[in-house]
Amino acid sequence: MKIYGDRQSGNCLKVLWTAQVLGLDYSWIDIDVLADQAKTPEFLAINPAAQVPCVVLADGRMLAQSNAIMLYLAEGSRLIPTDAYDRAKMLEWLFWEQYSHEPYIAVVRFQRHMAGLKPEAIEPKLVQRGYAALDRMELALSTSAYLVGAVASLADMALVAYTRLAHQGGFDLAAYPHIRGWIKRVEADFNIKD
Amino acid sequence: MKIYGDRQSGNCLKVLWTAQVLGLDYSWIDIDVLADQAKTPEFLAINPAAQVPCVVLADGRMLAQSNAIMLYLAEGSRLIPTDAYDRAKMLEWLFWEQYSHEPYIAVVRFQRHMAGLKPEAIEPKLVQRGYAALDRMELALSTSAYLVGAVASLADMALVAYTRLAHQGGFDLAAYPHIRGWIKRVEADFNIKD
Repeated sequence: MKIYGDRQSGNCLKVLWTAQVLGLDYSWIDIDVLADQAKTPEFLAINPAAQVPCVVLADGRMLAQSNAIMLYLAEGSRLIPTDAYDRAKMLEWLFWEQYSHEPYIAVVRFQRHMAGLKPEAIEPKLVQRGYAALDRMELALSTSAYLVGAVASLADMALVAYTRLAHQGGFDLAAYPHIRGWIKRVEADFNIKD
Repeated sequence: MKIYGDRQSGNCLKVLWTAQVLGLDYSWIDIDVLADQAKTPEFLAINPAAQVPCVVLADGRMLAQSNAIMLYLAEGSRLIPTDAYDRAKMLEWLFWEQYSHEPYIAVVRFQRHMAGLKPEAIEPKLVQRGYAALDRMELALSTSAYLVGAVASLADMALVAYTRLAHQGGFDLAAYPHIRGWIKRVEADFNIKD
């Protein structure tokens, strides 16, 4: 399997971590998004949506969308709960991540950390909704070590990707002790360093 | 099962259609979002995220996020492909819908049709990204009757929910013949009228 990704992107790291944790065979192909490498004719022939991550399987078929790739790679593994309701709650977090977390936490982090915008140039609504997402996670993690069930699942891997980088977007996690403890726990469980 | 939803919301209709198509037992509880019924103490006790749709199962457990609910309800049914790769492509469309389609097509439709904003009050970027989403669907549907495989799946049900209402947001589907044919096909397959 080939993984096309940018190591600055939490969405891409999710796919890399899944492959590493499960010990899958893969080669990583760097696509520098800021250098427009996702918009070259060569890359568009692989993924017309011009997005990373995407993977090309051994048989040549392509798959995109970080959470869909994770679910495909991790099917039948310990990263996906076997109980039907727990699996559905994991999916609930994965869809919530893409709709209510990533567009704020990851986007503000991109604007501050990668595009170099000053704090005053960030749309206040984005920051406010980012903190709302953190509030919701803090509430969930105040009664549970992980987002779903008693062990780390894809829900934790997906949410930790940008939550552990939230400070690069100027988000202050001082008031979120449960999130801070959970980040350390999930990083240790999945051997996340970079 | 109780389905809490607003019939003006495509996300809520997805869950209703899934229950209807599969012949599941359910009761529908109207939550008028514009009247802030998703923010009452009673509703927040059910879903602290203050969002519809959500379902409360027979055993009292709650599930949120339209696509996660659909996946839970439709597990093992004809609405989910049995082939692992096809299932992953369906998930790819479901995540793409929430990240690259709904925030533009549904949001502009909400602003125009429900909040009553004039066309000139709509942020141009939202309209532009909405058309980019339509472009991508038109491309996919130019070579295939459905988004994944030879029959309608949850991918089609999820994407049709707001695509069939795109005109209410001012999106002109005249240049999208494949999308228009697909909407009629999916509506017929799933007996969608409202």
